[in-house]
Amino acid sequence: MPSARTALPAWQKLTEHQRAQSRLHLRERFDRDPGRFRKFSLTLEGMLLDYSKQRIEEETMRLLAELARECELEAWRTRMLTGARVNASEDRAALHVALRAGTPVRFEGQDVTREVAAVLADMRRFARGVRSGRIRGAAGRAFTDVLNLGIGGSDLGPRLACDALKHCSRSGPRAHFVSNVDGSAIADALARLAPATTLVVISSKTFGTQETLLNAAAVRAWLERGLKSKAVRHLCAVTADPERAAAFGVPADRIFRTWDWVGGRYSLCSAVGLPVALAIGMEHFDELRAGARAMDEHFAQAPLEKNLPVVMGLIEVWNVNFLGCGARAVLPYDERLRWLPAYLQQLEMESCGKSVTRDGARAGHATAPVTWGSVGTDSQHAYFQWFHQGSAVAPADFIACCRPHHRLRGHHQALLANFFAQTEALARGMDAEQAAAGMRAQGLQEAAVRSLLPHRVFDGNRPTTSILLDELTPRALGALIALYEHKVFVQSVIWNVNAFDQWGVELGKSLAGRILPELEGAVPVSTHDSSTNGLINTYLTRRRRT
Amino acid sequence: MPSARTALPAWQKLTEHQRAQSRLHLRERFDRDPGRFRKFSLTLEGMLLDYSKQRIEEETMRLLAELARECELEAWRTRMLTGARVNASEDRAALHVALRAGTPVRFEGQDVTREVAAVLADMRRFARGVRSGRIRGAAGRAFTDVLNLGIGGSDLGPRLACDALKHCSRSGPRAHFVSNVDGSAIADALARLAPATTLVVISSKTFGTQETLLNAAAVRAWLERGLKSKAVRHLCAVTADPERAAAFGVPADRIFRTWDWVGGRYSLCSAVGLPVALAIGMEHFDELRAGARAMDEHFAQAPLEKNLPVVMGLIEVWNVNFLGCGARAVLPYDERLRWLPAYLQQLEMESCGKSVTRDGARAGHATAPVTWGSVGTDSQHAYFQWFHQGSAVAPADFIACCRPHHRLRGHHQALLANFFAQTEALARGMDAEQAAAGMRAQGLQEAAVRSLLPHRVFDGNRPTTSILLDELTPRALGALIALYEHKVFVQSVIWNVNAFDQWGVELGKSLAGRILPELEGAVPVSTHDSSTNGLINTYLTRRRRT
Repeated sequence: MPSARTALPAWQKLTEHQRAQSRLHLRERFDRDPGRFRKFSLTLEGMLLDYSKQRIEEETMRLLAELARECELEAWRTRMLTGARVNASEDRAALHVALRAGTPVRFEGQDVTREVAAVLADMRRFARGVRSGRIRGAAGRAFTDVLNLGIGGSDLGPRLACDALKHCSRSGPRAHFVSNVDGSAIADALARLAPATTLVVISSKTFGTQETLLNAAAVRAWLERGLKSKAVRHLCAVTADPERAAAFGVPADRIFRTWDWVGGRYSLCSAVGLPVALAIGMEHFDELRAGARAMDEHFAQAPLEKNLPVVMGLIEVWNVNFLGCGARAVLPYDERLRWLPAYLQQLEMESCGKSVTRDGARAGHATAPVTWGSVGTDSQHAYFQWFHQGSAVAPADFIACCRPHHRLRGHHQALLANFFAQTEALARGMDAEQAAAGMRAQGLQEAAVRSLLPHRVFDGNRPTTSILLDELTPRALGALIALYEHKVFVQSVIWNVNAFDQWGVELGKSLAGRILPELEGAVPVSTHDSSTNGLINTYLTRRRRT
Repeated sequence: MPSARTALPAWQKLTEHQRAQSRLHLRERFDRDPGRFRKFSLTLEGMLLDYSKQRIEEETMRLLAELARECELEAWRTRMLTGARVNASEDRAALHVALRAGTPVRFEGQDVTREVAAVLADMRRFARGVRSGRIRGAAGRAFTDVLNLGIGGSDLGPRLACDALKHCSRSGPRAHFVSNVDGSAIADALARLAPATTLVVISSKTFGTQETLLNAAAVRAWLERGLKSKAVRHLCAVTADPERAAAFGVPADRIFRTWDWVGGRYSLCSAVGLPVALAIGMEHFDELRAGARAMDEHFAQAPLEKNLPVVMGLIEVWNVNFLGCGARAVLPYDERLRWLPAYLQQLEMESCGKSVTRDGARAGHATAPVTWGSVGTDSQHAYFQWFHQGSAVAPADFIACCRPHHRLRGHHQALLANFFAQTEALARGMDAEQAAAGMRAQGLQEAAVRSLLPHRVFDGNRPTTSILLDELTPRALGALIALYEHKVFVQSVIWNVNAFDQWGVELGKSLAGRILPELEGAVPVSTHDSSTNGLINTYLTRRRRT
């Protein structure tokens, strides 16, 4: 049994180190060392990672790397990349890297990249057929719309990619996504679509996800009203259980396989990305995979201190476990990345939102913080007050692109000016002297300056990381996603939790299964606590009033 | 100078009380007292508020009410409702209740509800004209689309309401919202619209918001390309500065006033709601206002212990200051409320994300936590792992409606089964004995049961509030919004912060203003810290590569 993480020598040194340097303001750190940006930034292809506005010193990074070595990060990395069953509680490998690998990856004696290549070839043929109009609907019309039915890992990845990369393709069907079991979602989507021109992708690893199957049944009925028995020609499936998909009525040549060695939240580069191939083109999906591969190779080979995902993961550990931060924001200054915060929320919180170690012991330290966020500059007008002057400190990742895909140059300059200004303001703040001088310069009377002053001071010292991409290409998006995948893995190794299971979602599912038949029965229900009974009985009584 | 909040007798009693009862699990609380739901739930019109799954006892609520009285909540409530300058740092009243009041509200000797009524009458005439097709575009065609340009408080409220209530109106123009200064947003929106049939609402209290004015200029140019000098007939404005709107070219009879006694994040019931009146109909906007008024009257009159917003606000104080929670989720199990988390994020974090009291002292206690969330059941498949088994505890508001506006009954039953099951699972959890029994029932071998067991235990005891609405009518939405507005006000009184200013957004704005001209100049920029210089210079260098 390995010792608790908090007992490791490097953990204890980091605790000491934190005490010794905790009073140092980011302002001072920059003033003291003009080389700080050079020291604490890394580049990979068109990506700049600037972590110099984090509350770290060289010694911090040295000790964090020491911690990583004491936690055997390099060995765990090798294990994951070579198909060991790192998802021990489910006795599975976590081989998302095999989905985009350039060299063979062996698992149980087989090179799994061959299977992957076969599925990708099927996707390629199918996507080309649909996009060229060779593969048509039952009524002989080309598919103008693709409707993806999936939830969680079968939804957020393709949703993010289709939205972020829509500038890559002006032809091809439009992509739509329905995930929620709330009937409003599917009803609203179908109101905008026509059965004759809609291709439906049912994406569920088990082909047993309640939400997805209810939506699939509703959509099949809608297709059948329009197309009768030919409706099935409008269905495809993405699943690890082809038999169940076939039993639902999906034609065998429209079933695209996934495998149990790919977790839902890590599956974008598998057939789960089919909507991307259909809507944006397989060539762009391949570029996205190539970008992820480039990051995989960097993660596999670069020394810990120069390794982008390692550095990001270690900084999160520093912020969570040594500075006590309970939340981290993701703030893309790019409308096309508006789904990134939701995507990362699942990736990070479902992977590391655990308090029991791989060995089954209580972790005894904090794990995943809340991950949340939204696009800038919208977020500035919503909750940046809280960032600048709130009582808690939450680190944030700021993300922007140098070159936009529109022609409104003034807009892009204003957007980037805000992007640069916010991390500067959060780091430096504004002391009373500066604040008072600013108010006097605006002509305020001394009495007003005095009473306003406390409200106009900014403590600063709020840590941020900036990621600047040359351009939002498919390749850059793939690299960005893989960056965060591996960052999360790094954290999971330090925190000693399994990043690839999700037992925490089971209890709610099983209780919902017990409640569902009660909603068909008589009032009063009395099998639960008084709150759950009270809520159910209120529902049963009030829904009847219609 | 009032004493610090933490020194108040009730605060100290609450600290003691928390220690004394902190070990009591929600499971035990329910097992001990079958009347718990009755005790800790309230109704108002079609709204049920169930807070019995919070970690409270009767004594907790009694002490919290005592704290509220020691903080003079009732006097502050009266002050706000009667037009006192409760926004002291800006020397303004906070009279959003006057926007929907049934009786006169005096401010500076005037009954402001008269001015409000005049603006509402203008909105009514205008909305009816547009919706009936009487008021048309420059080319003689009816307006099929309304494009709202605004950000923060001029965006999130009407965006939420138009989306949530779209089932109320099948006629009338479609509403679109562009807020971000990222040019992708406006470029994508305009690609879907035609100048001849698009009515543009420029919504900015100061008519000086950078994002909104850049977008407005882009849209005006787009209109002029299609409509020449008649383009201005497609513009309206919502602003407290009619002169600037007129100078921009908005016709005088299309300028709808707001006032500096309404804060952006509290302004939905003002002319900021114009897109709602246009897209959904003024009669529904009036119902929304009536629902807010009903909640205002309840807030003004009900005793603290039976007062929905007071109870919710006090529970947040309990969770933040006595249980140490740093984040709270908002989880609508209703696709139509998908914008509610973003709306509340601004309302709560911008209002209470402060660490200086009204008197200018350091607060010395925690204030607004992170507010975040997304719709159920999507959220279950994204980050509920974290809720159930993560290392931190975050309370959550669960919101659902008894009666949907679609016909997919099976979907709604499944949705509500999940809604009920999740708060039950979070409260009760599952101990090792139950978890082991469940695995044995599934036929697992003893060795597997033993190794899996720690991963399948749920601690439970995770606090939630459930809000169940009969139906998502405009009236219900108005009441829900006012519920949260007043909840936030209650917290601000206990935390002793001004809920109506937002000085924390100024520094970033002024730094962006300094950086913008640098982005037009030469490399290298060296006027900032090395990180900000480095980022700016990377941008200046890389954007040129195109």
